[in-house]
Amino acid sequence: MRATYLYGAGDVRVADVPDPIIKEPTDAIVRVVRACVCGSDLHPYHSMAASADGSSMGHEFVGVVEETGGAVTTVKPGDFVIAPFAWSDGTCEFCREGLHTSCRYGGFWNSPGVGGGQAEAVRVPLADGTLVAVPVEETSPLIPSLLTLSDVYGTGYHAAVKANVSPRTTVTVIGDGAVGLLAVLSAKQLGAERIILMGRHTVRTDLGRAYGATDVVAERGPEGIAKVRELTGGDGTHVVIEAVGHMPAYEQAVGVVRPGGVISRVGVPQYEAAPVGFASLFGPNITLTGGPAPARAYIETLLPAVLDGTVNPGKVFDREVALDDVAAGYRAMDEREALKVLVRP
Amino acid sequence: MRATYLYGAGDVRVADVPDPIIKEPTDAIVRVVRACVCGSDLHPYHSMAASADGSSMGHEFVGVVEETGGAVTTVKPGDFVIAPFAWSDGTCEFCREGLHTSCRYGGFWNSPGVGGGQAEAVRVPLADGTLVAVPVEETSPLIPSLLTLSDVYGTGYHAAVKANVSPRTTVTVIGDGAVGLLAVLSAKQLGAERIILMGRHTVRTDLGRAYGATDVVAERGPEGIAKVRELTGGDGTHVVIEAVGHMPAYEQAVGVVRPGGVISRVGVPQYEAAPVGFASLFGPNITLTGGPAPARAYIETLLPAVLDGTVNPGKVFDREVALDDVAAGYRAMDEREALKVLVRP
Repeated sequence: MRATYLYGAGDVRVADVPDPIIKEPTDAIVRVVRACVCGSDLHPYHSMAASADGSSMGHEFVGVVEETGGAVTTVKPGDFVIAPFAWSDGTCEFCREGLHTSCRYGGFWNSPGVGGGQAEAVRVPLADGTLVAVPVEETSPLIPSLLTLSDVYGTGYHAAVKANVSPRTTVTVIGDGAVGLLAVLSAKQLGAERIILMGRHTVRTDLGRAYGATDVVAERGPEGIAKVRELTGGDGTHVVIEAVGHMPAYEQAVGVVRPGGVISRVGVPQYEAAPVGFASLFGPNITLTGGPAPARAYIETLLPAVLDGTVNPGKVFDREVALDDVAAGYRAMDEREALKVLVRP
Repeated sequence: MRATYLYGAGDVRVADVPDPIIKEPTDAIVRVVRACVCGSDLHPYHSMAASADGSSMGHEFVGVVEETGGAVTTVKPGDFVIAPFAWSDGTCEFCREGLHTSCRYGGFWNSPGVGGGQAEAVRVPLADGTLVAVPVEETSPLIPSLLTLSDVYGTGYHAAVKANVSPRTTVTVIGDGAVGLLAVLSAKQLGAERIILMGRHTVRTDLGRAYGATDVVAERGPEGIAKVRELTGGDGTHVVIEAVGHMPAYEQAVGVVRPGGVISRVGVPQYEAAPVGFASLFGPNITLTGGPAPARAYIETLLPAVLDGTVNPGKVFDREVALDDVAAGYRAMDEREALKVLVRP
C-alpha cells in the first residue's frame, strides 16, 4: 500500500510499504477513508534529522473496518469507524478514569509495528477499546467533522474541560489553528460567555467568531497582553487555553491569566523548562494544566451534536489533497495557506 | 517598641522602633501575644544582601487589639485576634472568591508603612477584613494552634484544597517542615486514606504519622522516587504536595506524581524556571497548582476543630524564645534543631 513517511525536515514522501496485517487477535485493519495533517506534524517537519528509513506519519483518520482479529467484538468488517490519536484498551484503570493517553496497554500511531494514518490502511491494536463505529456512509458530508473527533476537536475540548470552563469563567484562547478554533467551540459548549481569541488570520478568526469567540485580539507579545487586559478590566481571564506550543504562546498565557486562574495547554510544548516561579505562576496562584488529549474519552460526548449538525467542527478543513500529494498538503499548512488539510487515499 | 529586623544573610537583630499608630480609619493596632519564625523567613536569612536599614520580619502573629480606627466594626480593643499572613479587605471580588492573597486593596506584612509580626505590636490595615476575633484568653493553651491559622496550617490546607484531595486520592507530601506536616493533617481531614510523607527527621515524621501519614519515605532523589513508586504499584500518587520550595523537591514531585495527577506547591519557589514540557508535566497530563495560601479564607473552616481540640496543629512548635532572643530562634530553625519556633514579645 501507499503510506506517508517523513525522511527529514521538509522531506515528506509517499512510499510503497507492505499492507498491514492482523498480528494480534485484538487487532483490526482499517482502510482509511480520510486522514489529515496535524499542526503537531509540522514540528518534526521543521526539525527532524535526515533518516534513510523515515518515520511513518499521521495520527488522525476515519475509515472502514476491513478485517478483525478473533477477539474483536465491538466492530466488524464494513463498519465506518473513528480512530482517536492514541490506541487504548478501554478497560484499564487509566482508561476508566478517562485518561486513555496513559492506558497501561495503549500507545500511539507510528510506533514500532503500528503505522500512521496518512496511508491507505492501518493496523489498529486493541480495536475494541480504540475504535468507535458510527452509522454513516463513507460518502457522508459529515466525514470531515467526524474526523476532527480523532484529535483536534477532542483536543480543544480537553483544554476546556481541564480548565473547568463554565458559564462563570472568562476564556482566552491563544492560537487560531484548528485546535484553538475548536477550543473556542468547546468553551462555548461548556457555557463560557466571554471568549477572547488571539490570532492574526482573519479567515480563521472569523471562523472562531462563528464558533463563539466574542472578541478577537490580533496583537501579540506585550501589545496582545495589554489588549486582553484592557478587555477584562485589567485582570485577564479566568482561563487561558494555549493551543500553540511555543514559548511565546506560554509567555502570552502567563501575561493574560487572571489571579487564581488556569492555563490549559494543548499545544505540544516545544520547550522543556518554562517560568513557573513566584513572578509567573506561584504568586498569583495560577494553575497550569493540560496535556495530550484522551480523544477517545470525549467521542461519545461530542458525537451527537456532530451527527445532528448542531456543530460543524469539520469547517476547520479548508483543503483536501490526494494521498500522493500529501507533501503539498504539508507545505500548504506550513506556509499557512491552509488551516488544516484533509488527505484522501 | 522592639521589632525584629534582618540586616543581611544570617544577621537578625531586634531594634527599637517607633510604636505603630493608627493611620487610616480602617486600621487596628494589635499587641502581639505570640509570633513565630517561618520556613520562608529562612530564604532571605540565607541570601539577603547586607542593608543598613534592614527589613522588618515576621508575618504570623496572634495578639490583642489595643486600638481601632473609626471605621473598624468587627473587632474592638481587648479582642484576641488571629492575623493571617496577608491583609485584605474581605469584600473585593478576589476576597469573595477566597483568594485573599490577591485582594485588590490588600498586601503583605513588612511592606512600606506596615511592620512585621516578630515585634511587640503591629499596625493592621483593613482590620475588618483581616483579623478574626476568637473568644480565648491570651494565656490559653490553644494559642500555638491558633497561631498556625495565620499561615502554616492554612498553607498546608490550601495545598490539599487546590489539589482536590478526597477519599479517592492518594497523596505524597514532600517536606517534613511545619507546612508539610500540616498538609498531612489537612489531607487527612479531607479524607485521604493513603498519605506518604517524604522526610528524614524522625521526630518530625513521627508527628506526621500522628497527623495521618500512613507511610514515611526518608530517601531523597532517585531513591526516594523509586520508594514512592514501589509503595504505589509503580504509578505514584494522585496528589503530590510540595512544601519545600527548592528545585530538588520539584523534581521529586514530578518523579512521584501519577499520570493525570496534581502537583500542589506551597513551598515558596526558590527558582523561576522549571521543567514543564512533554517529558515532565505535559505528556502525562500533570496539573501544577498552588501558591501563597489565602490563609484568611480558611480560618473559619479550620477554627472549630482547633477550639474543640479535635486537632492540635500547634504541636509543630517545639521551641519558644523571647523576642530579644529571636536570633537564636532563627539559628535553631536554620540548623534544624527546631521544627518551628514561637516568639514571645
